[in-house]
Amino acid sequence: MLIVQKYGGTSVGTVTRMKRVARRCLETQRQGHDVAVVVSAMAGETNRLLALTPKIHEDPNDSEVDVAVATGEQVSVGLVALAIRHLGGKAQSFLGHQVKITTDSAFSRARIRSIDAERIHHCFKEGKIAVIAGFQGIDEAGSITTLGRGGSDTTGVAIAAALKADVCEIYTDVDGVYTTDPNICPSARKIERVSYEEMLELASLGAKVLQIRSVELGMNHGVKIHVRSSFHKKPGTWVVPEEESMEAVVVSGVSANRDEAKITLFAVPDQPGVAARIFKPLTDAGVVVDMIIQNVSADGRTDLTFTVPRGDCKRAVELLKSDCGELCANISFDDSLAKVSIVGVGMRSHAGVAQRMFELLAGEGINILMISTSEIRISVVISAKYTELAVRILHDGFGLDKPPEKRVGVA
Amino acid sequence: MLIVQKYGGTSVGTVTRMKRVARRCLETQRQGHDVAVVVSAMAGETNRLLALTPKIHEDPNDSEVDVAVATGEQVSVGLVALAIRHLGGKAQSFLGHQVKITTDSAFSRARIRSIDAERIHHCFKEGKIAVIAGFQGIDEAGSITTLGRGGSDTTGVAIAAALKADVCEIYTDVDGVYTTDPNICPSARKIERVSYEEMLELASLGAKVLQIRSVELGMNHGVKIHVRSSFHKKPGTWVVPEEESMEAVVVSGVSANRDEAKITLFAVPDQPGVAARIFKPLTDAGVVVDMIIQNVSADGRTDLTFTVPRGDCKRAVELLKSDCGELCANISFDDSLAKVSIVGVGMRSHAGVAQRMFELLAGEGINILMISTSEIRISVVISAKYTELAVRILHDGFGLDKPPEKRVGVA
Repeated sequence: MLIVQKYGGTSVGTVTRMKRVARRCLETQRQGHDVAVVVSAMAGETNRLLALTPKIHEDPNDSEVDVAVATGEQVSVGLVALAIRHLGGKAQSFLGHQVKITTDSAFSRARIRSIDAERIHHCFKEGKIAVIAGFQGIDEAGSITTLGRGGSDTTGVAIAAALKADVCEIYTDVDGVYTTDPNICPSARKIERVSYEEMLELASLGAKVLQIRSVELGMNHGVKIHVRSSFHKKPGTWVVPEEESMEAVVVSGVSANRDEAKITLFAVPDQPGVAARIFKPLTDAGVVVDMIIQNVSADGRTDLTFTVPRGDCKRAVELLKSDCGELCANISFDDSLAKVSIVGVGMRSHAGVAQRMFELLAGEGINILMISTSEIRISVVISAKYTELAVRILHDGFGLDKPPEKRVGVA
Repeated sequence: MLIVQKYGGTSVGTVTRMKRVARRCLETQRQGHDVAVVVSAMAGETNRLLALTPKIHEDPNDSEVDVAVATGEQVSVGLVALAIRHLGGKAQSFLGHQVKITTDSAFSRARIRSIDAERIHHCFKEGKIAVIAGFQGIDEAGSITTLGRGGSDTTGVAIAAALKADVCEIYTDVDGVYTTDPNICPSARKIERVSYEEMLELASLGAKVLQIRSVELGMNHGVKIHVRSSFHKKPGTWVVPEEESMEAVVVSGVSANRDEAKITLFAVPDQPGVAARIFKPLTDAGVVVDMIIQNVSADGRTDLTFTVPRGDCKRAVELLKSDCGELCANISFDDSLAKVSIVGVGMRSHAGVAQRMFELLAGEGINILMISTSEIRISVVISAKYTELAVRILHDGFGLDKPPEKRVGVA
């Protein structure tokens, strides 16, 4: 088999842990596999480097920031390759420009365009483990680029796609993907298999275990992703193409985000172009607007409500007051909200899932302020104080405390 | 003019100092010059990186050590380029592989073979300052190499040679090259102009201000080197081809090295091949032998004395006892010695310099244990306790406390 293993910053955070990574790579190779390892910067290193630049220059997207920040992964590949050699194995490190991980020129958030797998295949032929720097690439002009937070996951999956690997193993400090946060809900279970689509929704909703773009990439190239712990050998969670059996499970996971704020503009003129005018200052300021609700118009005026991350709420309200104050009668906000979501491909074929969700929440007296849905997700905004209660009631209410085969359909 | 400026680790040791470097580069450019800047890693960074590797792997010359250690300069070029941009200037960073600084494959101590000046000239055409990483290159296979301690000086001079620069300015935390160490001798003076040959001797003798290979490279390519302070704008020391006026000065500098040890093998057979047999175990163990003296043979046997660095003395004696014990009657050593040297191209045309040196030392009752000479240098080994006294007496005895035009010849 051809196996890509990706190790995050915690897994290579110390010299001792790097040695453990080296041992694991070698064990895999000795089982007869070709192994490419993608590594992140040592934990804390990227933040240390990123903290240097604002003291010098205000633009965090300047190409030279990428030059400085990409060094974190470079140190890691050198040391991990050394550790493999120390154990008697053969290894060779590869930086972004050496594997030709070509990206666009969007510095600090570049997207991978192509990878030249030739040098890695050559490395395998020589019996070597390829140790590849995550998070970095080069653009057409040969300048160093970085892929943004969690970019090493994306490098891992992209390398797996380019090599047509049998699996991309993402090693992390948790056991896998859980049905919900075990810190909130003690009955949370590790998910054995999840579809790309579900994983995408869970990642978008804040499950930190996999970077969203890496899931998209895996989905587009059919890369099987295995999220597992670097601290033991038990299997973790497989992220794979949707399988028939998955549809039997109505809800695969419950997620919660406690950092929501809601802003309401009252009596906005119900005319074309007004929404665009309202959201432009927020977009310009980099405030991400999530859910948007517009009430039924009365007298040619409507109320517009939307959510933003809590940290951006006050700034957003000030921007709206100064730029669009004349457009509405009043602006109000509530910044102690949470978004709780249920996700599952089974929703497509099961009716009544939303109904069941609302009943479960109502049963605990939890008021729903906003609702948004996708084909395989239902999210509700509620008061933040009910977050944990809502997660637990939904988790067990949809049978996630039981193994998939013992759950019963909703309708 | 085309000016190369090289800044050492202290000069870019903090964000504030990097900004000062950026300002100085821009000032130079605004005077109408093309500017290429070569920077070292932030002070302490290379040592921090080098300290990581022995915990993982015992071979300090492994190619992957270079991969990790080369990141220090990469951070610096990114940040200095950012600082120039922040001040409104145009700058572009270049890593070893981007300027194509091609070296041999002697990892951790690679030698530069060629530099592709094309990209830097292109950078100048766009009005940019080229910010180039010192200390690093790539070998023919595309692997990252580093040049060894002080390698950024060598990069600076090599870049100046490749660009046919008018001057290579080496910025450092001292004012220039001194006639001797001002900490030992208060009357030490900054040297205005010194020949490559003299600078080579001074650097070999331990003057830390310029790396030896950078001086050799400057000499071979006729690069004018200006060693100066990064903290003020006064001129420093020019290292240039020998000029006629330099011959008028008999002695240009006095240097001292307190880390000398002397080993004597008594009654060694005076036969071909014996010396080779004695020095082989030392060479194999990486012990550098400096001066060697063989006394007049008596009864087919002779005494052999040589110097080694103090730190290697005991190891060398043990090696000799186990490998060559049967070759000599006895082995003795003295590890509290110093080597004091005078250097000057004027020695070539002035007789009696050695005589004068010995008289000056004898006048203070300092016993000379060993002597070695080159065309432009005389070194003596003395008891370490007389080091400072010897330096002061030679410095002022040869008139180095006076400006060059007021010094009188010896003979």
